[in-house]
Amino acid sequence: MSLTLTALKDVPLVREGDDLCALVLAGLETNRLALAEGDTLVLAQKIVSKSEGRFRRLSDITPTPQAIALATETDKDPRLVQAILDESTEVVRKRRGVLVVRHRLGLTMAQAGIDQSNVEGADDRLLLLPRDPDASATRLRESILAQTGKAVGIVIADSFGRPFRNGTTGIAIGAAGIQSFIDRRGDTDLFGRVLKVSTIAHADEIAAAASLLMGQADEGLPIVHLRGPVLRGDSPAADLIRPAAEDLFL
Amino acid sequence: MSLTLTALKDVPLVREGDDLCALVLAGLETNRLALAEGDTLVLAQKIVSKSEGRFRRLSDITPTPQAIALATETDKDPRLVQAILDESTEVVRKRRGVLVVRHRLGLTMAQAGIDQSNVEGADDRLLLLPRDPDASATRLRESILAQTGKAVGIVIADSFGRPFRNGTTGIAIGAAGIQSFIDRRGDTDLFGRVLKVSTIAHADEIAAAASLLMGQADEGLPIVHLRGPVLRGDSPAADLIRPAAEDLFL
Repeated sequence: MSLTLTALKDVPLVREGDDLCALVLAGLETNRLALAEGDTLVLAQKIVSKSEGRFRRLSDITPTPQAIALATETDKDPRLVQAILDESTEVVRKRRGVLVVRHRLGLTMAQAGIDQSNVEGADDRLLLLPRDPDASATRLRESILAQTGKAVGIVIADSFGRPFRNGTTGIAIGAAGIQSFIDRRGDTDLFGRVLKVSTIAHADEIAAAASLLMGQADEGLPIVHLRGPVLRGDSPAADLIRPAAEDLFL
Repeated sequence: MSLTLTALKDVPLVREGDDLCALVLAGLETNRLALAEGDTLVLAQKIVSKSEGRFRRLSDITPTPQAIALATETDKDPRLVQAILDESTEVVRKRRGVLVVRHRLGLTMAQAGIDQSNVEGADDRLLLLPRDPDASATRLRESILAQTGKAVGIVIADSFGRPFRNGTTGIAIGAAGIQSFIDRRGDTDLFGRVLKVSTIAHADEIAAAASLLMGQADEGLPIVHLRGPVLRGDSPAADLIRPAAEDLFL
């Protein structure tokens, strides 16, 4: 049983308003990859955000007194802190250089996922997460189906830090057409014992696999094609967000 | 740029004392895969533990008063709790049905990674983590090099739950011949900005990718061959364990 991941070469820099479906289909053609039913496409969050115009300018932001205080505590630009707060529902951890929040999407993450790097042009541009990444994935899936007749899986991947472990890994912030969360609780193994591993973050594993290729070029490789045994379904990436009240580790 | 993962079929059940190198090389041959320099092999933790005889029997364990009290609190078998404590340096979280510990290897995990499922034979067998998974990976790497002349990467993978996210993902508990932890702090992007993602849990992403295939058969597929752009190096999986004092999330 095999799984093949291919990072598309020569994907142009994405600008606001660009059609992701056209971009993906052109990229597949350039790379001589014929899309098949059941293939999965993994997109870096930043190209989805850029196509959706999720930019802000630091120079447009007037920080509130709360943001100014938090900026002093964390040694960050008060306007950046304001942008982080605007994207968040709760500050989870703060420390010099560190601001971990619960993003309005439910994701617990540093800096609300706001990216200052690889945003071409003016120095003061910020790139926010897509407004609704599962919806972005669904729209792309439907456009690809309409244009090609192929039902594919879509994963929108971002790199996240984690408690207990050093280094980031790719995780899924949006998905469509795949079973992002696999729940086998109660299933038994070969010997009739209840499985040790009963729930699987399937879309996160797909994002992590794609991330192995995405980071390998200086300019990044923001689209990865995956062919292999991915579980199709309709569990969105939002299913992977654990409510704080159910968190065994907290 | 491509990455291909292949799960070996027809790997026999592993018993104590089995030679992992012989098992891997026989598996590659059965699956008609010729090993190449720079390939990576991902092994499920359980076959490494089994080959090393990391079994205990519940019936051999006499729980201490501490284990009995903790067993009552968590609604677990006191002998299992004793086995968990014997593998751990600290209880991190306890709740009905839940016992998260810091394993003596430094890993923060449920049940100290002790597996009661898929251990064939007597009902009361427990399977512990390998004594030193990085050393296990290094031994296997050296045996393969000696027998085939090929320098490969080795990852020993296990499935872990995580704070904030539902579902488990594959992570690396042991590695050899690869750069488990990639540190690019201070590097800049295309536009001269400091990279947003500056550290990567490379071995965890490899383990997650392999995990996509490992769980796909009823009996499990415990060996995955990976060919593609893996960063070679000598950072062991232990480099991925974040000391509690440095944890931004805690």
